[in-house]
Amino acid sequence: MDAVTEHASRAEAPASAQGAGRPRLSDRKRPGETAREEILDAAAELFTNRGYASTSTRRIAEAVGVRQATLYHYFRTKDDILEALLSTTVAPMLEAAATIAGQTASPAARLHATALLDGTQLWQSRWNIGALYLLPELRTERFEQFVQAREALRATYREFAALVLDDLASRGVRDLPDASEDIPLRLVETLVNLRWDNVGVADEPRRTADAVLRALGWTGDWNDLRRESARLLAML
Amino acid sequence: MDAVTEHASRAEAPASAQGAGRPRLSDRKRPGETAREEILDAAAELFTNRGYASTSTRRIAEAVGVRQATLYHYFRTKDDILEALLSTTVAPMLEAAATIAGQTASPAARLHATALLDGTQLWQSRWNIGALYLLPELRTERFEQFVQAREALRATYREFAALVLDDLASRGVRDLPDASEDIPLRLVETLVNLRWDNVGVADEPRRTADAVLRALGWTGDWNDLRRESARLLAML
Repeated sequence: MDAVTEHASRAEAPASAQGAGRPRLSDRKRPGETAREEILDAAAELFTNRGYASTSTRRIAEAVGVRQATLYHYFRTKDDILEALLSTTVAPMLEAAATIAGQTASPAARLHATALLDGTQLWQSRWNIGALYLLPELRTERFEQFVQAREALRATYREFAALVLDDLASRGVRDLPDASEDIPLRLVETLVNLRWDNVGVADEPRRTADAVLRALGWTGDWNDLRRESARLLAML
Repeated sequence: MDAVTEHASRAEAPASAQGAGRPRLSDRKRPGETAREEILDAAAELFTNRGYASTSTRRIAEAVGVRQATLYHYFRTKDDILEALLSTTVAPMLEAAATIAGQTASPAARLHATALLDGTQLWQSRWNIGALYLLPELRTERFEQFVQAREALRATYREFAALVLDDLASRGVRDLPDASEDIPLRLVETLVNLRWDNVGVADEPRRTADAVLRALGWTGDWNDLRRESARLLAML
């Protein structure tokens, strides 16, 4: 559904009912409780579908139906909007992973649950924000905080993976892969590419979480693993 | 080494020695046998480091040291340059995969060799061109041919993966993953992200090829597999 269709399909007050001093040019067109959320939604659509460099704040304001001055009230620059969007993909995962790390569970279930939650979020978010990770603009100091948050998430995945490998070694599993602690996050983030290429099935995040464990050489009862992983996620 | 340093460090004829009617503003600054190759090299650098939308053909011509008219002699539009760059990442792989498919080898070795070759190319190419796969610009009809070539490569990977899974099933391996024929290409393409994030080790393409097989549940002698894969690649 594009923004126009969505707009038309929603019941809304006629233009004449709007208060005179109201800064909004029209009623809400977008999901979001607040103007800030609507701005983020419009920006995510435009950045992912038209490109970051090719999208102006004027265009974002138009897509929301607010004046540019209103947009600047919430975000001083386009970079601020991008940073807010990117942080929604990483900050909640860091928090969830910390909670999962604190639970009593097998290393495999912890990694599976983390990959499943992260993958589901990347797969089901309204716009494919992960596709913005490779923007050259992110290489500037402005995005240092986001880059560090993503590095922290990578480190968490690596720790979880290392514990799985240790556990397998202690169970006598041989032929374990060398230095593949990075594989889990790499695999999970490919859901961004799958979405982009319009391939993959509804169940893709769960299949990907399974593949994460398999790629580390994990063996065991898959149904038990999925059950333990689901139990961890239910506690969040 | 940036373009300026590279230029300065090379012995070159003084400007006065250049023929009067020569369309080049300076001597060669870039690797490449021909002006066309130099243009592709400069464009790859600028597209990956500054962004596609933010790079003009004027800027590319400047980076090569040729007049814009010379650039237009080789490429009519910026899109033509992008397409030429993208095709270098996929066309040779399609050809190699066809050769590999024609050799007598185990399904696992065929997939390993394909993943290793593709991964090495993504990992070692002078510029990280794979980072351009998620450009919104590629969604237009203009790039239909590239999108189809990449789909053909995906289909080849899927076929190779299906044969590995069939082979494992016939050997009595149980608990094989469901519908994970897409995992191999997904994993190989994460080398683009690793490069972007400046992580990973020199041996990364080989580790990734191993992980591809592992993620499919392949078991067996890893040294034998790597040897057979290397033999296939030596035949190309």
